[in-house]
Amino acid sequence: MADIPHMDPESFRRHGHEVIDWLADYLSDVESRPVMSTVEPGDVSGMIPSHPPESGEAFSSIMSDLDKVVMPGITHWQSPNWFSYFPSNSSGPSILADLVSSGLGVQGMLWSTSPACTEIETRMLDWMAELLGLGDRFLSTGTGGGVIQDTASSAVVCAMIAARDRATDGKGSSHGGSAHETLVAYTSTQAHSSIEKAAGILGIGRTNLRLIEVDETYAMCPVALGKAIEADLAAGLRPFFVSTTVGTTASGAFDPLEQIHDICREHGLWFHVDAAMFGTAACCEEYRWIQAGCQAADSYTMNPHKWMLVNFDCNCLWVADRSELINSLSILPDYLRNQATTSGAVIDYRDWQIPLGRRFRALKLWFVLRHYGAEGIRSMVRDHVAMMQELVGWIREDGNFELMAPAPLTLACFSHVDGNERTRAIMEAANATGKVAFSHATLDGRYVIRFSIGQWRTSRAHVKAAWELLQSLSVS
Amino acid sequence: MADIPHMDPESFRRHGHEVIDWLADYLSDVESRPVMSTVEPGDVSGMIPSHPPESGEAFSSIMSDLDKVVMPGITHWQSPNWFSYFPSNSSGPSILADLVSSGLGVQGMLWSTSPACTEIETRMLDWMAELLGLGDRFLSTGTGGGVIQDTASSAVVCAMIAARDRATDGKGSSHGGSAHETLVAYTSTQAHSSIEKAAGILGIGRTNLRLIEVDETYAMCPVALGKAIEADLAAGLRPFFVSTTVGTTASGAFDPLEQIHDICREHGLWFHVDAAMFGTAACCEEYRWIQAGCQAADSYTMNPHKWMLVNFDCNCLWVADRSELINSLSILPDYLRNQATTSGAVIDYRDWQIPLGRRFRALKLWFVLRHYGAEGIRSMVRDHVAMMQELVGWIREDGNFELMAPAPLTLACFSHVDGNERTRAIMEAANATGKVAFSHATLDGRYVIRFSIGQWRTSRAHVKAAWELLQSLSVS
Repeated sequence: MADIPHMDPESFRRHGHEVIDWLADYLSDVESRPVMSTVEPGDVSGMIPSHPPESGEAFSSIMSDLDKVVMPGITHWQSPNWFSYFPSNSSGPSILADLVSSGLGVQGMLWSTSPACTEIETRMLDWMAELLGLGDRFLSTGTGGGVIQDTASSAVVCAMIAARDRATDGKGSSHGGSAHETLVAYTSTQAHSSIEKAAGILGIGRTNLRLIEVDETYAMCPVALGKAIEADLAAGLRPFFVSTTVGTTASGAFDPLEQIHDICREHGLWFHVDAAMFGTAACCEEYRWIQAGCQAADSYTMNPHKWMLVNFDCNCLWVADRSELINSLSILPDYLRNQATTSGAVIDYRDWQIPLGRRFRALKLWFVLRHYGAEGIRSMVRDHVAMMQELVGWIREDGNFELMAPAPLTLACFSHVDGNERTRAIMEAANATGKVAFSHATLDGRYVIRFSIGQWRTSRAHVKAAWELLQSLSVS
Repeated sequence: MADIPHMDPESFRRHGHEVIDWLADYLSDVESRPVMSTVEPGDVSGMIPSHPPESGEAFSSIMSDLDKVVMPGITHWQSPNWFSYFPSNSSGPSILADLVSSGLGVQGMLWSTSPACTEIETRMLDWMAELLGLGDRFLSTGTGGGVIQDTASSAVVCAMIAARDRATDGKGSSHGGSAHETLVAYTSTQAHSSIEKAAGILGIGRTNLRLIEVDETYAMCPVALGKAIEADLAAGLRPFFVSTTVGTTASGAFDPLEQIHDICREHGLWFHVDAAMFGTAACCEEYRWIQAGCQAADSYTMNPHKWMLVNFDCNCLWVADRSELINSLSILPDYLRNQATTSGAVIDYRDWQIPLGRRFRALKLWFVLRHYGAEGIRSMVRDHVAMMQELVGWIREDGNFELMAPAPLTLACFSHVDGNERTRAIMEAANATGKVAFSHATLDGRYVIRFSIGQWRTSRAHVKAAWELLQSLSVS
């Protein structure tokens, strides 16, 4: 192997220390960088040769191109001035756990292919269920259980598959033919686009997803849901699935889970809860009202990679009856048979997801939950909510802006009184300074600035400076 | 934030160096560890508290539990004595690129959310297409293009969705209702289980996937494929998709792509190529025969995370017509609209995959391809093939074992002449020594030991020792 430039353990150690130092430097000055990349399309790829190199290059050249080629094209999601979209939070313990996972290079498709990968995941999902107050139905010690997926998009695909197969008794399902041409799913007009995407992927058809109207807080209207179901039943269709949202993407609205659950129960529909962003708030007793009723769901999902200090990707999906999920997604070819699996004594997470292979992502949860403890995570959530509530006060006092939706936690949506074009211009001008990053949404035809707090590096001073920037732009 | 134990950059630097040293030590002694974990179900989880910690713990306690709790439950995929399944190869440059990706914590769902993440991916997939000799149809500079997925399982789901939607003209597709109850897909009896799983996920139904018989080399029989299609057409069904395999999981068989392509063209079927494991061999001109004809495919997929030194997860999927994939998977809610996207000047990879969010995985490809150069990767492939061919000679000379399938590259399947039980006993005894890891398959009712070479740490001496272990067990 003499002619192949494999990186031996001592070279790995040396270069590893270089990369750690590079990253520590980056993380210590991320605040000083323009939050959003200002490159134009083609700028980055224009610096990369059109053809792959024949010969290997020195590690130092690659690292120097990291600064020269990559960094100008980076939008800094880890900046304390990141108020855009939802955060993709990260933390030292999570990054280092991910490094361990990459270095071990294990593959957790089966229990037997690395038992620690499976057993730590099962335990972490039980820990998380307890932290979030999800109730006993989702624990692995009963009929339920949790699994790590890449994103809430994949999670809802898996939940919807299990629901589809339940509704069709195996006909028109994963196993049988396509006897599901009359299935109908429901979510609100404010739900995440992944619900519609899932309906398309599964062959339900996007047009068979009903987007139920919302009330003045942008929460799903249960009466409208009930009417839509009745209308579909009357038309000979088969309602089977309702996806509710705990914190919508546009404005952070909370669907009334208990009322919706009553409707699901009445009609025998699968009840899914998407708490991707705001599920983390449920670590705090005082914010659990946002998802009262989720304990009765068939499936529940949230993303530690958004607000819980775990770097992307790490989504958690729980189901109340794991056998339904496994029945839909399990295939056991001979080359994967093994004693542990056939004994039934273990979990094989390949049967809980679309891919076969899987990283050791539970390590990230384990490191983060132990490093911070439940108290540390709760303190971060409370700090962020307090910052937002102070900001909400400032917005209310300001004559130029008006809040366009309730903002009880960490997301505020507001517009300039002069209307959409002015609001858009202010947001774009703010982003163009490089000092902040905001995103936008449209609520009832009104263009709104979304101010989302969730980065752990964000302090009151960052929020205040960002708000003062918006104010200064609103009066000029 | 004083009461929250955030890891500041200097603590991250210190702990980062500790983790790098821990990993470098691990990688230098991975060979000395029992390859397969010997824990029993519950051993690992039994060492983890049932409830999450209230208070944060010292980083040193977490690291010490890594040794105590995690490592006994690890099966060492990176061991030079790993001959099981297919490898999940890794390398120093890849691990360090993954560390940079975790540390930057960017999210590449849109071009605008980190332009470097998208543009480097596009360029890397063009590099890879050139390296593998895929031809111009798959390049981003034409109508095609490539994208990184987690696994070949997800890749075939995406390809099959685009194929389904093409076959149904938007009716019974992602967009319309479910008018696809008569669609039929085809693959061989030796294809990976992910093809069947995809048919289930999409609502085609697993029973509408025809498993076509194979010839004596375990390659799909084109005549049988043609007959199956004719029979389905005669029955009023709608053939739409054929998945071929370049190196089957059980024995590494190569489907005859050119003949199958002719059939696909005649009937207007989507032609998918799954080269998950053996695609890497196509870096070498002399092994390109394994996928002659793949240049005419509608979609082609292979896994750098198997044999190309990129740590899991990193699958590459190419399509000849990217607009078909995007039409099936694109949804553009208002909160994701931005100038770069609406201008059409950029790629938004969220429209090429199931999830919305995505890691910066292209960095791993960039680091690996530059560190090794095309020559370095080719040398590794050639070394592995040479080792296997020497082993194949030893197997042929041995009176106790017989090869059960062709072994032209790096996978040999063989049985003991005394039959299935003896073969199984030998494999289990070998694995129980802790010195090696093999997996098995069943070929025509014969239990076979799969001896797969693909770890870069594996040398001729490791292969020889593993073979001698099997020999010693075969005569006792």
